Amino acid sequence: MLPGVGVFGTGSTARVLVPLLRGEGFEVHALWGRSEEEASSLAQELGIPFHTSQSDDVLLHPDVDLVCVYISPPLTRQIAVKALGIGKNVVCEKAATAVDAFKMVTAARYYPQLLSIVGNALRFLPAFVAMRQLLAEGYVGELQVCDARVYGPSLLDQSYGWTCEELMGGGGLHTFGSTLVDLLSHLTGARAMRVHGLLRTFVRQNGAIHGIRRVTSDDFSFFQMLMGGSASGRGAGTGTGSGVCCTVTLNFNMPGAFVHEVMVVGSAGRLIARGTELYGQRNGGKGEELLLGDSGGMGQEVKDVPLPHLRGLGSMVTALKYAFQAQKERRSWARGPVAMASTFEDGLYVQTVVEAVKRSSRSGEWESVEVMTQEPDPNQNLCEVLQINKN
Amino acid sequence: MLPGVGVFGTGSTARVLVPLLRGEGFEVHALWGRSEEEASSLAQELGIPFHTSQSDDVLLHPDVDLVCVYISPPLTRQIAVKALGIGKNVVCEKAATAVDAFKMVTAARYYPQLLSIVGNALRFLPAFVAMRQLLAEGYVGELQVCDARVYGPSLLDQSYGWTCEELMGGGGLHTFGSTLVDLLSHLTGARAMRVHGLLRTFVRQNGAIHGIRRVTSDDFSFFQMLMGGSASGRGAGTGTGSGVCCTVTLNFNMPGAFVHEVMVVGSAGRLIARGTELYGQRNGGKGEELLLGDSGGMGQEVKDVPLPHLRGLGSMVTALKYAFQAQKERRSWARGPVAMASTFEDGLYVQTVVEAVKRSSRSGEWESVEVMTQEPDPNQNLCEVLQINKN
Repeated sequence: MLPGVGVFGTGSTARVLVPLLRGEGFEVHALWGRSEEEASSLAQELGIPFHTSQSDDVLLHPDVDLVCVYISPPLTRQIAVKALGIGKNVVCEKAATAVDAFKMVTAARYYPQLLSIVGNALRFLPAFVAMRQLLAEGYVGELQVCDARVYGPSLLDQSYGWTCEELMGGGGLHTFGSTLVDLLSHLTGARAMRVHGLLRTFVRQNGAIHGIRRVTSDDFSFFQMLMGGSASGRGAGTGTGSGVCCTVTLNFNMPGAFVHEVMVVGSAGRLIARGTELYGQRNGGKGEELLLGDSGGMGQEVKDVPLPHLRGLGSMVTALKYAFQAQKERRSWARGPVAMASTFEDGLYVQTVVEAVKRSSRSGEWESVEVMTQEPDPNQNLCEVLQINKN
Repeated sequence: MLPGVGVFGTGSTARVLVPLLRGEGFEVHALWGRSEEEASSLAQELGIPFHTSQSDDVLLHPDVDLVCVYISPPLTRQIAVKALGIGKNVVCEKAATAVDAFKMVTAARYYPQLLSIVGNALRFLPAFVAMRQLLAEGYVGELQVCDARVYGPSLLDQSYGWTCEELMGGGGLHTFGSTLVDLLSHLTGARAMRVHGLLRTFVRQNGAIHGIRRVTSDDFSFFQMLMGGSASGRGAGTGTGSGVCCTVTLNFNMPGAFVHEVMVVGSAGRLIARGTELYGQRNGGKGEELLLGDSGGMGQEVKDVPLPHLRGLGSMVTALKYAFQAQKERRSWARGPVAMASTFEDGLYVQTVVEAVKRSSRSGEWESVEVMTQEPDPNQNLCEVLQINKN
């Protein structure tokens, strides 16, 4: 039985998510927006019966059993943790900080019977499902190097807001880098032990952001991850990821269609996902072969949502349908179909890597990735802000 | 009047160079090979009248006025410096170390009337000539990022030799990274101030190299350069290169055709050289445009010589013809046609960057690029070897 859905957010992702959910038979009962106007406008456009700017009105809505949270990173933790506390299943975007991510992990551990996933749709994209499968089957031999790149237009909003502010989860590293950190860990079955990175903000002001306001979030970044131990038993299970070098390049000063490329190279061949298509080449083979074409579906790229994310989102919603549909209770679900999803624990790991890359960009040194195991001193954030301002 | 040519080397580049020289009207009078057999075999194949394994026989050959040195890096300095001392013009490959490069600079300064260029053919490739021109004209606006990548098959020789040995100038960084370091400095008109890098040797033994022998040269590398001051007045002259981030990825565990891509991104657009073709996209434009197609010419890629190097070599030989042909003396030449060539000073800069990247890979830290201004203690090399063996 499919649960009723409440959606938080009125941005690009929320806008494409609603039709995808309906396409799989979910009913969307409620929409939350930051302001009454934003909520009302999108609810009317999409024909959602209830809208509000009060989060509790969605969380406590009697027809809502699954909450999808696609809002600005600093608000995510609060909504996700509260939803779990009320006993609702949660699919959400990443948090703003490792501390927030840790609080989400704590909540998810406390309610293990509830679904709690960080909606990194790339894991569900058929090209990456196939890539992971082929890696496990040894298509590339011993894995050596992963190389990922995303190029696209500016991620800044029309007006000054969280997208401009590094500490609020803005910037290419946080927005797209994090999905690649998660994906590469998922593909290799390993986690980053040490990282090195370089972040830049080339565009500090533009037509919409000027005067005393300046962008602090990165529009270019470049980082390396040295992979080590296995990803808590949830990886491809081959353990080949240890010792792998991953390199990621992100550039959001490149208007036009998104370039989204992930390549894995091993001793016996390589696999390359270009956009939503998967190519492979074995050493000694006569050239590159198309292993998986584009699955079709929603045709157009949406602003701020590259096609692989859009298609992945569709596959993730399908997986959610399979997880829920055979159940008798509206809130119970089967783990199988969403077993490949990114957990809140994965979310904490990803956030930890993102923060280590930022630290490396400031220090110029390789930084260790040490995933938090207990909640830090509440003054920690304040200290970090002071630290940054000092430099 | 075109000078008679003596060629050092029997490898892939020497083999393609001879027909290119003849195509432009140069006569190749003498060939040097490491062994009598190698020299004899290639001389017979190419119909070169004189061959030897004694370097002086070529350098002192009365018909040889221009010496082209395409041999293993550790031998380059000796031949190049001696050729200048005998009063011959020199086109050569890079040296093995910064100390060697410095000695070559000293010789070149001592004989300023002789032609002395490091034959980085990429500078002459029409796609890069056009890219440099468009950069100077402001096609991309303010330059922000350069991103270069070369992927290809193993660079190791069939048998154990200098290609396997880091300290002899083997490895992808020294072989192809150096041409990109030179090119990026030429394109941006700036020089690397600080570098950070990561080198790996994934394939340490293979069918030909086994037993107690192990490869020490890199087959994967990845480095970043932060560009600063202008390249001794020889750059594009716009000074836009300062503050630019350059990233370079090299992977020689990828059998098949070479991938050779150089992208420059600025505030108003971008330029991308894929292989020998140049593409551009201006922000707000409707998409990518082909700015320069492949010039044609020699059709096939040669082992170890990517097409951009091959085509560039052709253009460089043409430039050499223009430099010499209007002259009355066989050894005099006009600077104009070869003004864009890489000087021995550029070669020293490049070697300095390469060594700083290697140092960074060992230290894990950003390393400064400090070009040698006086010859170091002769024990310096020994110290470095001891240093490396210690780690």
